[in-house]
Amino acid sequence: MPAPILEFWYDFASTYSYVAALRIAGLADKAGVAVSWQPFLLGPIFKAQGLTDSPFVLFPDKGQYMIRDLTRLCDEIGTPFRLPTPFPQNSLLASRVALVAFDEGFGEDFSRAVYKAEFGKGLAISEPSTLDGILRALGKPADSIMTRAQSDDIKQRLRDQTEAAQTKKIFGAPSFITADGELFWGNDRLEQALAWAMRTMTT
Amino acid sequence: MPAPILEFWYDFASTYSYVAALRIAGLADKAGVAVSWQPFLLGPIFKAQGLTDSPFVLFPDKGQYMIRDLTRLCDEIGTPFRLPTPFPQNSLLASRVALVAFDEGFGEDFSRAVYKAEFGKGLAISEPSTLDGILRALGKPADSIMTRAQSDDIKQRLRDQTEAAQTKKIFGAPSFITADGELFWGNDRLEQALAWAMRTMTT
Repeated sequence: MPAPILEFWYDFASTYSYVAALRIAGLADKAGVAVSWQPFLLGPIFKAQGLTDSPFVLFPDKGQYMIRDLTRLCDEIGTPFRLPTPFPQNSLLASRVALVAFDEGFGEDFSRAVYKAEFGKGLAISEPSTLDGILRALGKPADSIMTRAQSDDIKQRLRDQTEAAQTKKIFGAPSFITADGELFWGNDRLEQALAWAMRTMTT
Repeated sequence: MPAPILEFWYDFASTYSYVAALRIAGLADKAGVAVSWQPFLLGPIFKAQGLTDSPFVLFPDKGQYMIRDLTRLCDEIGTPFRLPTPFPQNSLLASRVALVAFDEGFGEDFSRAVYKAEFGKGLAISEPSTLDGILRALGKPADSIMTRAQSDDIKQRLRDQTEAAQTKKIFGAPSFITADGELFWGNDRLEQALAWAMRTMTT
């Protein structure tokens, strides 16, 4: 019997996606659920909703709380939390590189490395040099990957990802979708989404 | 040794406060934490942030998700969920009556009854007749309580509550605050807030 699949939709600019990206592999393994990693851009979806910036920037009390909440969550899983400047980071290039990395079979490792650089060390992932360094640290041919990341094919595929997210009614990140179409929003719904994916499989 | 105290800030218009209001007493009892119930109005705080309506109304995909999410959460605790019309309800009068009910020692029971009427049965709690019925069902003198709820003293005390919430940097409901000033936002942070309150006590 094949493992049930859970789609994991994430934006590299999203702080709560950082925590989910670090937690999901271990929890999914334990649950016997296969994770399908789906990078996308939340910016165009926010814009379509009339939001001009991250809600954490638009509403300062909410933004201040977010930092405290994430510090507590990261303390619990023993990982550092540091907000990059500026926040949110432009995640366009990192997302394009991620699509190439998935083609090459190291998309998950790349995604986790981007999140750790951005929210563990506070690095600017909008800078090509940061992504270049991540690729080199993973032992990958950075130059050719960065070139492919800017190809028309990859650019279009990222647009398709974001459109697919919108079609699936995704409005925030991280989001999780089970094989039977159930949507869960937020790092704090990861366990519930995994339980739902397992239940779908046994019925 | 006195029990550690957790402040529970809630708005009767808030769907996630409904779930928290039904869950908090049992969980707090088990944890040995005393709960201080704090009704307030989120509307003025939203307005001060520039929000013209509930985010669940402003962003339709988020609103549709909220209903599904709450249905799942209520299924888990074996309670019905039904959205009243219109949503959100005006919670001004219910909040004023709640302050009188707390003076009379039945504020918790009244608050739970309001939530069950509103989100369990989908009743309009902005209607005085709904609140009147809830008071009567609790065996209380509805007429005199409703009159006191409209007194200048109670009106001012509710404004004070909302101002206190704002001073405490509350930006959503439900919110929980520990004795050492730690803020937690959302029904899904209730367990974490209780754990924090207990930890504060033992250190």
